[in-house]
Amino acid sequence: MAVHAGAAAEDAKGATSGRYRAVRAFTEKLLEPLSPEDCMVQSMPDASPVRWHIAHTTWFFETFVLAGAIPSYEPFDPAYLYLFNSYYNRVGDQFPRPQRGTQSRPSLAEVRAYRREVDARMEQLFASARLTPELASIVEIGLNHEQQHQELVLTDIRHALAQNPTWPAYQTDLDASSRHQEVNESNELDWIAFDEGVYEVGFVGDGFSFDNESPRHRVFLEPFALAGRLATNAEYLNFVEDGGYRRPELWLSEAWATVQEQGWSAPLYWVRNGGQWREFTLGGLVRLEPRRPVSSISYFEADAFARWAGARLPTEFEWESACQGLSIEGNFVESDALHPQPNPGAKGLEQMFGDVWEWTSSSYGPYPGFRASDDALGEYNGKFMCNQYVLRGGSCATSESHIRATYRNFFPASARWQFSGVRMARTI
Amino acid sequence: MAVHAGAAAEDAKGATSGRYRAVRAFTEKLLEPLSPEDCMVQSMPDASPVRWHIAHTTWFFETFVLAGAIPSYEPFDPAYLYLFNSYYNRVGDQFPRPQRGTQSRPSLAEVRAYRREVDARMEQLFASARLTPELASIVEIGLNHEQQHQELVLTDIRHALAQNPTWPAYQTDLDASSRHQEVNESNELDWIAFDEGVYEVGFVGDGFSFDNESPRHRVFLEPFALAGRLATNAEYLNFVEDGGYRRPELWLSEAWATVQEQGWSAPLYWVRNGGQWREFTLGGLVRLEPRRPVSSISYFEADAFARWAGARLPTEFEWESACQGLSIEGNFVESDALHPQPNPGAKGLEQMFGDVWEWTSSSYGPYPGFRASDDALGEYNGKFMCNQYVLRGGSCATSESHIRATYRNFFPASARWQFSGVRMARTI
Amino acid sequence: MAVHAGAAAEDAKGATSGRYRAVRAFTEKLLEPLSPEDCMVQSMPDASPVRWHIAHTTWFFETFVLAGAIPSYEPFDPAYLYLFNSYYNRVGDQFPRPQRGTQSRPSLAEVRAYRREVDARMEQLFASARLTPELASIVEIGLNHEQQHQELVLTDIRHALAQNPTWPAYQTDLDASSRHQEVNESNELDWIAFDEGVYEVGFVGDGFSFDNESPRHRVFLEPFALAGRLATNAEYLNFVEDGGYRRPELWLSEAWATVQEQGWSAPLYWVRNGGQWREFTLGGLVRLEPRRPVSSISYFEADAFARWAGARLPTEFEWESACQGLSIEGNFVESDALHPQPNPGAKGLEQMFGDVWEWTSSSYGPYPGFRASDDALGEYNGKFMCNQYVLRGGSCATSESHIRATYRNFFPASARWQFSGVRMARTI
Amino acid sequence: MAVHAGAAAEDAKGATSGRYRAVRAFTEKLLEPLSPEDCMVQSMPDASPVRWHIAHTTWFFETFVLAGAIPSYEPFDPAYLYLFNSYYNRVGDQFPRPQRGTQSRPSLAEVRAYRREVDARMEQLFASARLTPELASIVEIGLNHEQQHQELVLTDIRHALAQNPTWPAYQTDLDASSRHQEVNESNELDWIAFDEGVYEVGFVGDGFSFDNESPRHRVFLEPFALAGRLATNAEYLNFVEDGGYRRPELWLSEAWATVQEQGWSAPLYWVRNGGQWREFTLGGLVRLEPRRPVSSISYFEADAFARWAGARLPTEFEWESACQGLSIEGNFVESDALHPQPNPGAKGLEQMFGDVWEWTSSSYGPYPGFRASDDALGEYNGKFMCNQYVLRGGSCATSESHIRATYRNFFPASARWQFSGVRMARTI
Repeated sequence: MAVHAGAAAEDAKGATSGRYRAVRAFTEKLLEPLSPEDCMVQSMPDASPVRWHIAHTTWFFETFVLAGAIPSYEPFDPAYLYLFNSYYNRVGDQFPRPQRGTQSRPSLAEVRAYRREVDARMEQLFASARLTPELASIVEIGLNHEQQHQELVLTDIRHALAQNPTWPAYQTDLDASSRHQEVNESNELDWIAFDEGVYEVGFVGDGFSFDNESPRHRVFLEPFALAGRLATNAEYLNFVEDGGYRRPELWLSEAWATVQEQGWSAPLYWVRNGGQWREFTLGGLVRLEPRRPVSSISYFEADAFARWAGARLPTEFEWESACQGLSIEGNFVESDALHPQPNPGAKGLEQMFGDVWEWTSSSYGPYPGFRASDDALGEYNGKFMCNQYVLRGGSCATSESHIRATYRNFFPASARWQFSGVRMARTI
Repeated sequence: MAVHAGAAAEDAKGATSGRYRAVRAFTEKLLEPLSPEDCMVQSMPDASPVRWHIAHTTWFFETFVLAGAIPSYEPFDPAYLYLFNSYYNRVGDQFPRPQRGTQSRPSLAEVRAYRREVDARMEQLFASARLTPELASIVEIGLNHEQQHQELVLTDIRHALAQNPTWPAYQTDLDASSRHQEVNESNELDWIAFDEGVYEVGFVGDGFSFDNESPRHRVFLEPFALAGRLATNAEYLNFVEDGGYRRPELWLSEAWATVQEQGWSAPLYWVRNGGQWREFTLGGLVRLEPRRPVSSISYFEADAFARWAGARLPTEFEWESACQGLSIEGNFVESDALHPQPNPGAKGLEQMFGDVWEWTSSSYGPYPGFRASDDALGEYNGKFMCNQYVLRGGSCATSESHIRATYRNFFPASARWQFSGVRMARTI
Repeated sequence: MAVHAGAAAEDAKGATSGRYRAVRAFTEKLLEPLSPEDCMVQSMPDASPVRWHIAHTTWFFETFVLAGAIPSYEPFDPAYLYLFNSYYNRVGDQFPRPQRGTQSRPSLAEVRAYRREVDARMEQLFASARLTPELASIVEIGLNHEQQHQELVLTDIRHALAQNPTWPAYQTDLDASSRHQEVNESNELDWIAFDEGVYEVGFVGDGFSFDNESPRHRVFLEPFALAGRLATNAEYLNFVEDGGYRRPELWLSEAWATVQEQGWSAPLYWVRNGGQWREFTLGGLVRLEPRRPVSSISYFEADAFARWAGARLPTEFEWESACQGLSIEGNFVESDALHPQPNPGAKGLEQMFGDVWEWTSSSYGPYPGFRASDDALGEYNGKFMCNQYVLRGGSCATSESHIRATYRNFFPASARWQFSGVRMARTI
Repeated sequence: MAVHAGAAAEDAKGATSGRYRAVRAFTEKLLEPLSPEDCMVQSMPDASPVRWHIAHTTWFFETFVLAGAIPSYEPFDPAYLYLFNSYYNRVGDQFPRPQRGTQSRPSLAEVRAYRREVDARMEQLFASARLTPELASIVEIGLNHEQQHQELVLTDIRHALAQNPTWPAYQTDLDASSRHQEVNESNELDWIAFDEGVYEVGFVGDGFSFDNESPRHRVFLEPFALAGRLATNAEYLNFVEDGGYRRPELWLSEAWATVQEQGWSAPLYWVRNGGQWREFTLGGLVRLEPRRPVSSISYFEADAFARWAGARLPTEFEWESACQGLSIEGNFVESDALHPQPNPGAKGLEQMFGDVWEWTSSSYGPYPGFRASDDALGEYNGKFMCNQYVLRGGSCATSESHIRATYRNFFPASARWQFSGVRMARTI
């Protein structure tokens, strides 16, 4: 994995250890509302128990940093190397993913002890001369990796709690204020136009980026326009009430087959209850707020909605080109709302970052000249470049320090348990 | 459900409450070695999380006793009526069984609080004038029901722990002594002969029995012989090493299809490890003891083994007729071995009770004149009388007070996670 | 396989060859209405293409008779030994059953040429000194085997044609007359009572029988009564209209799961069409005749219907004991109706033979002392003695010369594409 | 569907009818070696019986041309409108695709009669004043549609015959000469370089094209190189023998899961037989020819092979840009080889057209400004633009008159029963 890291002097070392402590502490904070039982649930093969996320992010530092830094390193527990390897074939075999929910040992308490021990060893490493720039780069990957799993902790536990007919909340005091936020009433949709031309896309600069954001390269874009804000629950509800889920002509063929097989009739977390639409959030079941961005929809749904609205999804390069010059501001996990919020209603491009990941029409593939590294970390991104679609911009469950304009998230077209929504586009 | 209960005077009332406390306390004892995480695991659709067993057995008393006894009864939590109903359609809908492992709320602690509250209300009932003989009969059913779930707690947690590649023990200090027990060395197999004739089978008497044990009726048996003891690990290992799992001529057609689809090559809990056979027990992974009864085999395997040995399985009526006059003695859950033990090696019929449930060749069906009651408890047994085979005699995980010569357990022919073994029979 | 054959003198030889020609000719007759395309269809894994039945019944004689009789026998085509072996592991591997419909070669014409060649070789055998009594016994098995497949040809092609939305008939001029047959109008249900006692069941005598009908042995029967006739479409329609398929309390647990998973709401071939019930028969889609026996129902449905009617299914031994002394008369395949017919409405036991196979509550198992032969023909019956239920009496698609009071047919509880119906029983 | 058709004067009309006769006649020619039984086989849900292809291509003209041209048109058989609709929701419901193999009626003869009748009515239309330019455009679509199905007839029947353990040939006298063709012996791989720049891609001009080839638009390509010829069996065999199918690091994650689940160890039609590799072709099982292009591989395999070889797949725009200026020459269906042939061994870009469809790394999606038409023909291409990959160039089963440089074929990444192969690319 190509990591674009800066100089690794003493300052860098301090920065690394400081950031390590902050990111790791935030994971601990996410655990606070959860019981050992909560941390056991694997509600579908695509999701993992929280307990597993906690162990796996620790395994990452042990495997890729400590074991590489310390001669004849003694692992905390040799069984963990197998139990908590996600998908790195070059590291070794993996415990089958769909069975993660059957593992009660090590317990959550034992996993947290593992975490503390690895943290202590990492602190020793930070204090030593062994933290080479190369290792610091891997630490940085590990922290970005942990931030990805922090988001998954939130989305996986939401999915887990949604299996419970009592609709329990992850955190009961969520976002009361946000529901009464002042917003521009009219909320008409602006279209922002962009010229045709050769654009440069992909990462360039000194900070961290993932290998899939490189190499920076040129693309030609025909003239296009982007919606100034995200599509809202109100707009999506119109689609639903217009028979959106019963009209095959609005859907891709594979999407329509999915709608019928899975019995989809609304977004994953929408619940029709006594004549009223509600939405299951991390704060429990709440009234569906019309002004909030629609979220937890699949690529299939985003695409059908856009077609119904006479528009389309943007390509990932239209999206990236459009946000050049924008600063990284928005509703991220740090705002503690843990749910997308109404758009302010200003002119211009709003909500490009945060709130919801925005589906693009771009199939996830390699950039020209991309080559995964030959070591195990080369398995991080490259091998998933097939039958997945790119999402951009981060969500209300993403850390602000984690996101960039060039950042590429990706999920299969049927996945809908993430904070994923839609910004429409048009060819001019 | 027809319950054969005696007079329900004050003495009976005292007996009921005393037995209630004892049975309920034993469930608590079984929980001692388990963590909240352990109690969450559902390792296959046929098994349930321990936490669910704890709640369901409490639900049983609340639903069938308290709600019937107390006018305008307020349930502990209305959601529990749905969550912890197993299969009683006449009580209401049921949360889907294969999803039980996705429920983290109520937590184990909350379920235990539910248990304590229901126990307190039951004590109030015992102290009141409301405990009619009819209710006392249902209490007795509830206690026998709870004893069945106690056995399932042990077999389900064994299956759950077996999914863990570290082979954790339920209880680490199990049965060390039993492995060095004095036994008759030779261990030859005696065959005990029985005459042809009309036999009476089915329950008669004053104590408790399940409805499926009645009516008592007559059957004609041709002359037969039963093995004097259970088949041993040593004998079963001979079958395995003789290519037993690779020879279709030894298996029923459906059994052979299962062997191939599931890749069976030995009993469920046998592990070939470094050239040596081990067995996963509730005490962890131990050396396979040749003299112990083979256990955790399916009907399919019991049948194939018997065929290989030139014998067959007994019918349930051969079994029941043979044990008339025998007292209920054996290795039950009270002995705390939690695993089948070597036969003493005496002459005559040994091990008819305890150690392992004995597969019979009898498909589970109704006795002549059987009719399930019209209420919800009529669903207890009758509706399962199809495509299941009868097992007799109880096991090392069965309570001694729970078993009888007329007791009929039943499982599908492919089930093999119970303490189930084989006693051979022959037609003379 | 134990075959109870009489003396095999010259007369016997003549009888064998005569019967061979007759049975084989009847198979040819069944082919007349069918195109090569019809003979290709495999509409579900449990059914086979007609073309395959034609080849397999020929393979049977080649494999078990000719190859045994003639030294260094040259098979017609070595590939056929594999392609047309159904399930005889001791003969060799088998082409996978669910894939039979993917084989277009050999064509129907080639299969019929194969048939003619084997017939010619069989005639040579009949004319030779090589036809030992042992071989003649196997010929007899082969002819009974072919008669079973003749019935399957009719039931499998009915199922195949039922997949076609145009409802094509197998034979268009079927049973017009039978629909107007004179019948006793009232059609009340008589119950015929039988005493308790020890009965002898199982085959005895000189003719042919299958191994699963032996040994003859004794059973004790409690007093019981049988319905004097088969249950009718009118009675079954009452069950349907009384919500039979929506009331779980009427069904076995596994049956109810099947009803829901498969969406059953009426018998397999009943079609609700413009407010009227129709039935798909070998003669096409016809009005549902109230007086005809209900047919093409599963064990699950027969059992639920009987429970709804306050009765139960008979055991196979009640059925067999009841028909002792009856002659083999009824609506068989020779009547060319190819569908069950209204009962005449006489007093006493009607319709015990022919019309529909009658589900019994007996799980298919071995008789005391049964032992399958060690050769390949030992696989004929014994290995299916698990999770199947016994049917008795033959159907409108059975040859009259094929059926006996002791004859045991068997199918899984969910199977419903045969001519299978229900006669109710009661314990007195 | 936007059709780019030229003027539709009398000449055009004559051209249309002439081409109609030629294309339809070629379909008939493809049927010659096939029996009614062959035409029944559906060997997997993705394939269709030949009989169905014959009917569906006829249905197309009846539905989209005749029914539109003739007031109060009487369909040949109303049932056919349902039976032979493939996936056009706007026309009506469709008979379920995976069940096509269960339909024996109409027979092949009836389907051919249907074909003749529709042809006769089309001739009447050609002779009439009703053939508007719009209808002529749809006829042209129908002919291109039929050419696509001609290729599917060949690939589906090859798959069907491959299910037969006797490996029957579609045509026994295939390509004997081609196996001895003169070729340049060395066969080294040339790399042809292309400059960076803005390229125009997509269809422009007067002839026919599908809607998915438009609008013509601009793309920017970084500098790249294409292999001068297709990858050969010899090269692919090196990959196989180098453990290609056992090394996860060479495969996309989803590809590796497929390899393991499906047990892939070589291309679909390669057979290891007595120590020698053979290939199942339409001419039967033949020796694997090293110099022929590897074919019948999936995207997954093409991608893994290219990675193993230190290369990658081309994008569809690299491929299209590279072949600008090339004439449409190659081994098409007209050469009657029905199998890919060895490359001549000339310098420069060889085999861009014909032999095998070339997998590109491009996910199948819409071009900027693409919009499917609102009528049923709008379902032809657009709704499949998800989770499929583009293939270019046509194959040995494609008609020469059917292919163009801008032509986009598409299949899922796991599909491998087409004549699909690989040309490698590199970023310079």
